[in-house]
Amino acid sequence: MQRVIIGAGALMCAFTALIGATGCAATQHDSLTSWNDGPAKSAITDFVQRVTTEGTTDFVPSAERIAVFDNDGTLWSEQPAYFQLLFAIDRVKQLAPQHPEWRTTQPFKAVLDGDMHALAESGKKGLLEVVMATHGGMTTDEFADVVRDWITTSRHPSAHRPYTEMVFQPMLELLAYLRANGFKTYIVSGGGIELMRVFAEDVYGIPPEQVIGSSIKTEFEMRSTGPVIKRLPEIDFIDDKAGKPVGINKFIGRRPIAAFGNSDGDLQMLQWTAAGEGPRFCLYVHHTDAKREWAYDRESHIGKLDKGLDEAHRKGWTVVDMKRDWSVIYPGDR
Amino acid sequence: MQRVIIGAGALMCAFTALIGATGCAATQHDSLTSWNDGPAKSAITDFVQRVTTEGTTDFVPSAERIAVFDNDGTLWSEQPAYFQLLFAIDRVKQLAPQHPEWRTTQPFKAVLDGDMHALAESGKKGLLEVVMATHGGMTTDEFADVVRDWITTSRHPSAHRPYTEMVFQPMLELLAYLRANGFKTYIVSGGGIELMRVFAEDVYGIPPEQVIGSSIKTEFEMRSTGPVIKRLPEIDFIDDKAGKPVGINKFIGRRPIAAFGNSDGDLQMLQWTAAGEGPRFCLYVHHTDAKREWAYDRESHIGKLDKGLDEAHRKGWTVVDMKRDWSVIYPGDR
Repeated sequence: MQRVIIGAGALMCAFTALIGATGCAATQHDSLTSWNDGPAKSAITDFVQRVTTEGTTDFVPSAERIAVFDNDGTLWSEQPAYFQLLFAIDRVKQLAPQHPEWRTTQPFKAVLDGDMHALAESGKKGLLEVVMATHGGMTTDEFADVVRDWITTSRHPSAHRPYTEMVFQPMLELLAYLRANGFKTYIVSGGGIELMRVFAEDVYGIPPEQVIGSSIKTEFEMRSTGPVIKRLPEIDFIDDKAGKPVGINKFIGRRPIAAFGNSDGDLQMLQWTAAGEGPRFCLYVHHTDAKREWAYDRESHIGKLDKGLDEAHRKGWTVVDMKRDWSVIYPGDR
Repeated sequence: MQRVIIGAGALMCAFTALIGATGCAATQHDSLTSWNDGPAKSAITDFVQRVTTEGTTDFVPSAERIAVFDNDGTLWSEQPAYFQLLFAIDRVKQLAPQHPEWRTTQPFKAVLDGDMHALAESGKKGLLEVVMATHGGMTTDEFADVVRDWITTSRHPSAHRPYTEMVFQPMLELLAYLRANGFKTYIVSGGGIELMRVFAEDVYGIPPEQVIGSSIKTEFEMRSTGPVIKRLPEIDFIDDKAGKPVGINKFIGRRPIAAFGNSDGDLQMLQWTAAGEGPRFCLYVHHTDAKREWAYDRESHIGKLDKGLDEAHRKGWTVVDMKRDWSVIYPGDR
């Protein structure tokens, strides 16, 4: 996957922002090439124009231009299951030879048998066991190596392509467009923070320090070979629903002015963003394209968008209709 | 307190870094004007020269130039007690009229009587009670207002000056110097993250998202007036000693190449930094100036520097002798 290249115009704009000169209010919406003209694209470019035009009441200094993005279903696909669960399943299979007891013990037996029904029946407790067995019990460096290997070699079960090619081209353009206009872009995801950090910089142009996610507890240990940070089999923080504004406050310490999500799990993040003073932008990606991606919302077991959709309509937030608003879904489809 | 102004040279250098051109390897050590010539200053400028000179094996890309700074005793003074404890004491006095029971209940009685001996006798449990009573039980916005009011109106008990004037001028210059050379500067402190974030940007030029510290648990709540984040009376994370590398890994997700501390509480942060591959820089500020600041190390009840001093000598880390190496301590003394 190639990084999105920011054009020379954006670069000059960044420089102009640096020296405090004006004249870059002409925003870079030519770069949103995979967005069809329509209300969603206009809402985005209008907002960016407003907050970047100096001398107006809506102007927001660059340091305060914080934009937060959910990951699963907002920056990349999330069907038929969160990709991190697919990672955990792959990892159970990989580790199985060292755990002969898994052949007869749930929830691991279900994973090895490919019995998603039995896995679901093991409930939160079962899923947690799978997560801990696959995400804990090693150092942070070892875990990053495992994820790096998985993300480069594994393929999506039905699309048969690397997960990093199942990111949304229009959102890559949006991330680059916001950064070209002086925004700092963050991921705020229910997914694992140390998993996303392995590829977020290459795939999204988002450095590790701008990735916020769920985490397990870790511990510093001085070994004879040097210090390590161990990943413990214990949940530290769940960065989902009401956890998202908590995570934003903890990691960023200031309120975003723009928030992007796709499910009810993002609702509190959007509410928290919207409730700040001054211009605010909230956007939901609505999965409406069963042909090119997936179509789901109020009844979905993953990425359920129900209360959020109602609130978006009530509050006038922007709702992207993937089928209507995006000319391309994945980068490879251009 | 005025922010340190970065000169036009640094700005052009930042621009040059932005467009990927070379020629800015001539580092800005003229800006370290409060540092006397000697081994500490040379060690700093030599390191920065090495990691910023393109085409050499020691060159480090700007994105990886992460520098972490302890706060208490490293960026500002910490005697006769951590300034945050002095805040808590001031706050107990301020809140006392609403808590008549405190007049007869420890540890609050000790605080109100100014009896530091009795307060110390209440131990960790007592201190924790004081911290929770003064730091919890309100929203994050309310807490920020309380801190903002305190930091602008309160005075140090013996120096009789604002705490924000008791920051170290040479460290302000060092922060600006590193940033001018493409470093991202972070605070990694045992102090409260939400307390420091109120003034870190104005005083140190460090934005909230680059402040890491100890925290209490928080909770999102939707009220009829809108969403708030409540501060709960429960410890979330202690960012001290072995907690510092854990905090760095959690918040930054990559290992710093330079670390600055003053006590044994910073030792694991320096060890974690030093253990990375490639060029590394570790520095201890040694409080040796009883006349202009305070002199203390191995036996001090605050900012004890004992094991760290031994390890610094063993590993060849830089040790700043405040008396010898700094021509000015506080900005007002210039």
